[in-house]
Amino acid sequence: MVPNGHAPQADLKKIDVSRLKVTLSSDLKPIPSFESMLFGKYTTDHMLIMDFDPERGWSTPEIKPYGPLSLDPASSCFQYCPNVFEGTKAYLGPDGKPRLFRPNMNLARLASSVERIALPPFDADALLILIKRLIMIDQRWIPSLPGYSLYIRPTIIGTRVGLGVTESNYALLYVILSPSGPYFPPSRSILKRRNWVRLLASSSTSAVRAWPGGTGSYKLGLNYSPCFAPQREAESKGYSQILWVLPVDTDKGKDWKVCEAGNMNVMCAIRRDDGGVDILTPVLDGIILPGVTRDSILKLIAEHNKGLPLRGLSSELQIQARETEIYMSDILRWSNEGRLIEMFGTGTAAIIAGIWKVGWEDDDIVVTPEMEDVLKDSEEDTNGLGKIGKALYDRLLEIQEGRVDHEWSVVIE
Amino acid sequence: MVPNGHAPQADLKKIDVSRLKVTLSSDLKPIPSFESMLFGKYTTDHMLIMDFDPERGWSTPEIKPYGPLSLDPASSCFQYCPNVFEGTKAYLGPDGKPRLFRPNMNLARLASSVERIALPPFDADALLILIKRLIMIDQRWIPSLPGYSLYIRPTIIGTRVGLGVTESNYALLYVILSPSGPYFPPSRSILKRRNWVRLLASSSTSAVRAWPGGTGSYKLGLNYSPCFAPQREAESKGYSQILWVLPVDTDKGKDWKVCEAGNMNVMCAIRRDDGGVDILTPVLDGIILPGVTRDSILKLIAEHNKGLPLRGLSSELQIQARETEIYMSDILRWSNEGRLIEMFGTGTAAIIAGIWKVGWEDDDIVVTPEMEDVLKDSEEDTNGLGKIGKALYDRLLEIQEGRVDHEWSVVIE
Repeated sequence: MVPNGHAPQADLKKIDVSRLKVTLSSDLKPIPSFESMLFGKYTTDHMLIMDFDPERGWSTPEIKPYGPLSLDPASSCFQYCPNVFEGTKAYLGPDGKPRLFRPNMNLARLASSVERIALPPFDADALLILIKRLIMIDQRWIPSLPGYSLYIRPTIIGTRVGLGVTESNYALLYVILSPSGPYFPPSRSILKRRNWVRLLASSSTSAVRAWPGGTGSYKLGLNYSPCFAPQREAESKGYSQILWVLPVDTDKGKDWKVCEAGNMNVMCAIRRDDGGVDILTPVLDGIILPGVTRDSILKLIAEHNKGLPLRGLSSELQIQARETEIYMSDILRWSNEGRLIEMFGTGTAAIIAGIWKVGWEDDDIVVTPEMEDVLKDSEEDTNGLGKIGKALYDRLLEIQEGRVDHEWSVVIE
Repeated sequence: MVPNGHAPQADLKKIDVSRLKVTLSSDLKPIPSFESMLFGKYTTDHMLIMDFDPERGWSTPEIKPYGPLSLDPASSCFQYCPNVFEGTKAYLGPDGKPRLFRPNMNLARLASSVERIALPPFDADALLILIKRLIMIDQRWIPSLPGYSLYIRPTIIGTRVGLGVTESNYALLYVILSPSGPYFPPSRSILKRRNWVRLLASSSTSAVRAWPGGTGSYKLGLNYSPCFAPQREAESKGYSQILWVLPVDTDKGKDWKVCEAGNMNVMCAIRRDDGGVDILTPVLDGIILPGVTRDSILKLIAEHNKGLPLRGLSSELQIQARETEIYMSDILRWSNEGRLIEMFGTGTAAIIAGIWKVGWEDDDIVVTPEMEDVLKDSEEDTNGLGKIGKALYDRLLEIQEGRVDHEWSVVIE
């Protein structure tokens, strides 16, 4: 603190981990059954919390029993929504130790979201230490079932009190935990025997998720609620989610640029004439979210080509991952040519989810799997994926769940 | 309540005014001085509050002492921001009675915002009755100074608890009040002797407020925080606010469509060759907010032409109001030709605020008033307005403050 009462600029980010205050709950909740663990439904016994004020910076961090927040009705978080969040997961390894998956990527994105929405900055390294402490305290909540995990939700909200339209120089940072099963539970599956996802794309401009100069590439709470009404509409038509597209003028006329599915990035597997497969995904153009799972899959495909073949795929199979602009006319053409052999959504919550149809212009664009086994009923849950998606899913999960050593998996000691 | 525990669909909107519960504060706050009444800084003694749950609908409304909200950290309002608000004002008439200005327009817009963001519907008529009750209870807070008023902030936030990305079927509706002076207080004026506003427009696409298919035409909290960082940048350059523009391709090449100033609609007064004046304002294209003040000014100009001349203007002066597309190239050309004689922002908070410069491409587009008196130092506060803007401002205020009879002014008995 300097004489005028303001913390020096360089110290604004500081979070003093050494002063962490821990108050344990005296009334631990029962762990719900795996079957009832719908994504994000339950929260654990404790939460991490601290607040920022412009004079003293971040307060002493505290881990305390999960409980309500008390906030002035004129707080910025209610009025103008400077609210950001992240989603990452903790897994229980075969050694019984919890681990995180590439947490620094999520924290870097959180810092970028904070800057975009003019919230106070924070020390990401300190926050990671505190998140690890919270997870150790609530580690009995990490589900041990494959595909299940403890979802971690760091949240920062603006708490400036006042109706003037200006940045929030007060904030509350908290982290809550939720034991979670598959994002698309079997009961929500449209095709009963397979957990595939149907997306609905719309050529209407009545709702567009993000645009150049908008906030689509940041993890802001405000990107999500405008999608609720379109999402409800899509569900009423039998689709699981919206595939967001952006109308554009191209050299060849009007078209729709494929963006993302709102909480999943999307990837298309296209059979090439030379027998190889292109995995195409929209380029990071400032409109879509730079997903951690998206990035991981692109790197896993690169590893496959460097001699670390994905289990279940021939090492001879040439898979080429490319970030590129994808238009609805492309998807339609690939489908018509029978070359759209797989399509999947990727995200921390959804992991990798197979997509089998995309509603478009009152019709469905169909993914045409080449491999018959995909549509066979088997005991094994394939998460609605084809051969390539399943190979990527298996590899990702074995890293995330600590069944193999990998630098992406960060063990919490 | 029907047997299955769900309220019938038709009753979902219902708010039972007859069961209003009033708990008066036993600890009334002192009224702050007029000088300290910055916009939205203070709140009054009481608030109106009720909540919605999908089984019983809206709860019994309650007026109670102003105080904090207690909410689960996983509430939708923090995570996904389905939060809407309105802004309207109460004035004290010469008869000592409070009055509202066109409150039904604000409540209709609130209903439209609620629908867009998939919050539960509400009965606007019932809400208006309750707002009137709240104002009567806190009527000592209505400032009696001209240009001052009691700002009313109805707010509805999503309170569904859970991290699944889906519409909030729980909500909290509350109304808070704030005694407020001018939105641009003299101390924030750039030109010390005049309270004119400088706007900054940017041809960069690094930040764009709204887009076709976005939410710009709804009063959602989430439209505001993405403007905070650009606003800070504009202020660091000496501007008061951003003039939001949208890059477009026109017949004549690349241009920038003028939208709004974030919390003001904008109007340009253009001298025509025939001696008349065009008041041009961007058309309601789904991108800009349909402002109540904007609508009122358009109607006041129509009245002027129908034989209800605006005081301070000759009844011979032909003023033509037109809603049209305005591009930055237009504003630049009008300024260069010396025909941009006035420009002002309109909004409930800002009322009518004179604009004297628009920063554009490292230069300033200058408004060139024809009437010398505008720039003279006078005792009278002109809110930085030229002759036309001032005539509209005076007329609007005399209606709002109940100094003349007008159907727009709704007396609270």
